[in-house]
Amino acid sequence: MPASSINDFHPIASAQPDDYLPHLGLSTLNTDFQAQFNDVKFVCTGGSSGRMSEYAKLFSALANVPSSGNLCNRTDRFVMYKTGPVLWVNHGIGMPSLSILLCELFKLLRLACCTDVQFIRVGTCGGVDVKPGTVIISEGVVNAALEKNKFVQWIQGKQVKRDALLDAQMGNDLFSIAVGLNLPAERGLTLSTDDFYEGQMRLDGAFCDYGNEEKLAFLGHLIQIGVKNIEMESTCFAAMIHRAKYSAAICCVVLVNRMEMDTLMLREFHAEFEKRPFEIVSRYILNKISSSNSDFV
Amino acid sequence: MPASSINDFHPIASAQPDDYLPHLGLSTLNTDFQAQFNDVKFVCTGGSSGRMSEYAKLFSALANVPSSGNLCNRTDRFVMYKTGPVLWVNHGIGMPSLSILLCELFKLLRLACCTDVQFIRVGTCGGVDVKPGTVIISEGVVNAALEKNKFVQWIQGKQVKRDALLDAQMGNDLFSIAVGLNLPAERGLTLSTDDFYEGQMRLDGAFCDYGNEEKLAFLGHLIQIGVKNIEMESTCFAAMIHRAKYSAAICCVVLVNRMEMDTLMLREFHAEFEKRPFEIVSRYILNKISSSNSDFV
Repeated sequence: MPASSINDFHPIASAQPDDYLPHLGLSTLNTDFQAQFNDVKFVCTGGSSGRMSEYAKLFSALANVPSSGNLCNRTDRFVMYKTGPVLWVNHGIGMPSLSILLCELFKLLRLACCTDVQFIRVGTCGGVDVKPGTVIISEGVVNAALEKNKFVQWIQGKQVKRDALLDAQMGNDLFSIAVGLNLPAERGLTLSTDDFYEGQMRLDGAFCDYGNEEKLAFLGHLIQIGVKNIEMESTCFAAMIHRAKYSAAICCVVLVNRMEMDTLMLREFHAEFEKRPFEIVSRYILNKISSSNSDFV
Repeated sequence: MPASSINDFHPIASAQPDDYLPHLGLSTLNTDFQAQFNDVKFVCTGGSSGRMSEYAKLFSALANVPSSGNLCNRTDRFVMYKTGPVLWVNHGIGMPSLSILLCELFKLLRLACCTDVQFIRVGTCGGVDVKPGTVIISEGVVNAALEKNKFVQWIQGKQVKRDALLDAQMGNDLFSIAVGLNLPAERGLTLSTDDFYEGQMRLDGAFCDYGNEEKLAFLGHLIQIGVKNIEMESTCFAAMIHRAKYSAAICCVVLVNRMEMDTLMLREFHAEFEKRPFEIVSRYILNKISSSNSDFV
C-alpha cells in the first residue's frame, strides 16, 4: 500500500465528469467550488447544528462580514455557514459522523484549491477534575483503549492505526488568547470515546455494570495519564486532519466535572459557557487575519 | 460484574430527585413520562431528521391518528414525533450517536412504564450485489472485524463484546409484508462500519490506499459470508435492544449497488425508494395494532 495522502485524492472518481459530496448536498454540477470557497482559511466545527449557526452569526457581527445562509443543499445531515474565510460546520455526534464530514470537507477544499487551512473543533466536553466553564485546549488525544495520539480504523476487515496529531503552535496560541481574555483555561490530553454513557463510566445511563468506586478509579487513572477532558470526536479529528496535511486544534468547554457528577443538567449558564470557546477561537482567527493583512476586515 | 440488564437500570441516578435525558431535552421536571408515553409499542428510527419527520406525517395520514410536534425540547441533537403508539425518532449518523439515543429512549420507556416495545430501524444502505430500490430485511449483523452478531464496546479501557441479535419473527413478518406489497425485498446479513468511505471500501472518498480490485475482492468476500447490505448502525442497534430485552428488526432500502458504483448521486427516485421501508413498516404496525384490537384505529 502506498503512503496515504490527500494528494493521491481519489484518482478513480476524479475521472468521472462530476464529483458529489452527498452528505453536504454539493456537487460539481451545482457548485463552482473555486469561486465559492477558494478563500477559506479556517474550518470551525462542533457537534450541534444550532451552536454552529449561532457561532456564524456571532462571528459575522464581530468581524463585520456577511454570513451565508446554510450552504448544505437538499440534505439535513449537516449545516454549513461561511463568514469570509471561515466555515462553520456541525459534525453531529461521534467519530463516524465526523469522519464523513471531514472526508467531504477535504474534497471541497481540494476542489476549491484552498491552501493553508486550519481546522478547529469548538466543542463541549466533560471535565476530569476540572470545573465547569473551564476551556480545555487539547495537547494531545487518547483513544478508548487509552493509547495516546492514535486513531483506529477498520478497512477490509482489518485494524489500521493512524497517528492522531494536533498542531502545537495553534494550541499554544489559543491558550495564550484564553489567558489574555481572563477565561479559565487549561491544557491537557483529551479522551475520545464511542459512547457517552458506559464508555465514559457514567452511572446514569440505561445500563450500569459498575459502581461509583470503579468510576472514580477510572477517572483517577485518566488524571494520572494527563487527561483533562472527555468527548467523542478528537482522535478521529486529529488523525484525519493530520493525514490530510492540514493543521488542527481542539478547544472545548467543560459542562460538568465528572469527579462530582454525570448528568448534564439543563442550566442557564450553559449558554454562557458555550460562548467561551467561540470567544477564544474568534479572537484567534481575527488576529491571524489582521497579521496576514487580509483585506476582508 | 453482574449480568447487565435494563432492570438494573441506573440504581444510583434513580436516587436523585429528578432524571434527565439530556440529548432528548426531556426530564422528570418538564415531562410526565407515564401520561405522555405509556402507550408506546413501536419505536421507528433512522438517521435523517427530515425522513423521520416525513414518516411521522405519512403514518399520521395513513392511520388517521394525529402526530405530535417535535417532542425533543431545547436541543437540536435529535427529533422525535409520536403518532398514537408509534415513536419516530432520528438517530443521526453512526453507532456513537445511535447509542446515546437508545440509552435515553430506554430510560424514557422505563420512566413511562412501557411494555412489549418493538424497535425497527428504517434506514438507507449500500447494496452488495443488490439492485437500488431493493429493501433488505436483516437476518443478522456483521461488525467491522467481520464477526457475526457481535458488537464491540470499550469500557474502562477494555474491550467488551455484546451479543447483537435481531427478532426472527419480526424479520419474517416484515419480509412477508414486503412480498405481499410486491416490493423488491431480500433477507441477509447487514455489515455495519464506523466509516462511510474507507470502512466500506469506497474509491471516491478523500483518501484511498486501495484500488478497484481490492474493493471488489472485499465485496466478493462479503457476498460469500451472506452480507447483502452495508450501513453504519446495525450491530449497535441489535446489541443494545437485545440487552435491554426489547425486540428489534432492521429494514433498509438500497440506494446504490456497490458492485457497480460508490457515489450516491442526487436522483429523484431516491424519494420513492425511501418510502419503501416505510410502506412495509407502517403496514406491519397497522397489522399488529388491528390484531391486538387496540382502539386507536
